[in-house]
Amino acid sequence: MNIEELAAGVLARQPRLLARAISVVEDGREEARALMQALASAGQQTRVIGLTGSPGVGKSTTTSALIDHYRAAGLTVAVLACDPSSPFSGGALLGDRVRMQEHFLDPGVYIRSMSSRGHLGGLSASTPQAARILGAAGFDFILIETVGVGQSEVEVAASADTTVVLMAPGMGDGIQAVKAGILEVGDIFVVNKADRDGAHDTVRELRHALSLAADVRARPAEPDEWTPPILLTVASTAGGIPELVKALEEHAAWLTGTESGRMRKARRAEAELEAVVLAHLRARAGAFRDDPRFRDLANEVSLGLRDAYSAAEVLVSRL
Amino acid sequence: MNIEELAAGVLARQPRLLARAISVVEDGREEARALMQALASAGQQTRVIGLTGSPGVGKSTTTSALIDHYRAAGLTVAVLACDPSSPFSGGALLGDRVRMQEHFLDPGVYIRSMSSRGHLGGLSASTPQAARILGAAGFDFILIETVGVGQSEVEVAASADTTVVLMAPGMGDGIQAVKAGILEVGDIFVVNKADRDGAHDTVRELRHALSLAADVRARPAEPDEWTPPILLTVASTAGGIPELVKALEEHAAWLTGTESGRMRKARRAEAELEAVVLAHLRARAGAFRDDPRFRDLANEVSLGLRDAYSAAEVLVSRL
Repeated sequence: MNIEELAAGVLARQPRLLARAISVVEDGREEARALMQALASAGQQTRVIGLTGSPGVGKSTTTSALIDHYRAAGLTVAVLACDPSSPFSGGALLGDRVRMQEHFLDPGVYIRSMSSRGHLGGLSASTPQAARILGAAGFDFILIETVGVGQSEVEVAASADTTVVLMAPGMGDGIQAVKAGILEVGDIFVVNKADRDGAHDTVRELRHALSLAADVRARPAEPDEWTPPILLTVASTAGGIPELVKALEEHAAWLTGTESGRMRKARRAEAELEAVVLAHLRARAGAFRDDPRFRDLANEVSLGLRDAYSAAEVLVSRL
Repeated sequence: MNIEELAAGVLARQPRLLARAISVVEDGREEARALMQALASAGQQTRVIGLTGSPGVGKSTTTSALIDHYRAAGLTVAVLACDPSSPFSGGALLGDRVRMQEHFLDPGVYIRSMSSRGHLGGLSASTPQAARILGAAGFDFILIETVGVGQSEVEVAASADTTVVLMAPGMGDGIQAVKAGILEVGDIFVVNKADRDGAHDTVRELRHALSLAADVRARPAEPDEWTPPILLTVASTAGGIPELVKALEEHAAWLTGTESGRMRKARRAEAELEAVVLAHLRARAGAFRDDPRFRDLANEVSLGLRDAYSAAEVLVSRL
């Protein structure tokens, strides 16, 4: 199959060809460039929403509730599941998978699990491109699910138009969030499982952490700056989902309607380009593994005959 | 301070200079090369042990128990805490930090928290180098604590001589481990909190997952290959810690005493070198952010006038 046929299949939203196109960017294959070139101008209307949070906070349940909401309004939704423990990527308990079953059977919903396949920077480079493919296919919403621990995972979450950070009461997420850089990327914070004890404590801790983070930033806020709301949900019964949808709409309006919002969009585009440049360099660098000197140099480092930096320089200079 | 003085301070194990030296590699500064060159031949006797697992499985408690054990034997220990939620990196509940307090006061123990500082590949490049610095300083054991979710985190864990993968009953870690590539890097598996319900279920799931992984590998095992043991511990009361120490010794003997072990060491050295080469390329690539065309190209991608791959090629060709 040539790239024109593949691109046409994407634009016609043929699931089999969508899957193949996403594999092309996921594997970082040669054809990715021609494919993305063919699709570049399509799908500017798609909204990309990142949902991130530790395993167990209810990302998939929230994703599922958002799908229900958008589908009821006649909108189409694609899910990119970057969290290996998500039921959307087949990694969860049977009960969860069964609950998600209806989505798998709905032609207005496309679900794809993304894997890092061991490539450094793989997920952060390929996920935004996979989102572009789904945008070109005309899905109204793309939901990217990531586990919010680990630097690539934070980068992937930050590559969305709007990033929703989920927490749950009693998981000690608050402290971890501050450390993991999750606070900086959150446009909307959701305390899910709000019917459990401690939900209001989690909100309070989060509010405190956010105000500390704002103090640290130490520059005056622009008048049109976005203030991340903190919402309470019980996603398993769709509680609070209409409010979440409303906050998502407000953020979308802010992105296009304000100077700060447009700057945010520009920064997001820069991060996307940076990830691809890095993946590009990485692919080039793959060559050094085949360099006959690679093993010897690694051995010299291991024996203490040489430091890793000078060995790296030798390899880079030979590229 | 010049590099000779810094290197001499490391070799003399002066905490202030150790901290400074680690910051040099952590920040990827220019001087890192000269520093690591000065230290290359030192510290070949150090054992580097990685401890990885989800938050809550008891990594820090296990680390603390190992420190107690080695200190009682008159050995010195350094900890590199890459998990932001670890008490060793100051991210945990007060109670945990108080329990760790004695280690912070012991001159035979050095504790350092590593941050990714937002650099792609940062943690995986800098942590093995930080371990080399601590090795040069003459610590007998270096314990690297990482949260086993996320690709960089898995890479860091895999950079140790011996990687210990920790789990706890009832956390659903089993399934996640299979997906996250943690099974492949584990030399020793520990089911901690073994006094809780479900410990034996976790062992059974893990054994099943390991046998599946071995089947997938689909090549005959070498006769001298390492079979990862599965141990049960209750780290909070040091239960099972002597058995863990024994397994660590056996793995160390295997690494040096068998052909498969020496091959494993070589692969580890190659991975370390690869991480540094990538960080090197990354630093070079930093230049493209300053390229006057960077913002324009990002904007063109964002508007659908151009795909990210061709924009990346333009930038790379201008480096």
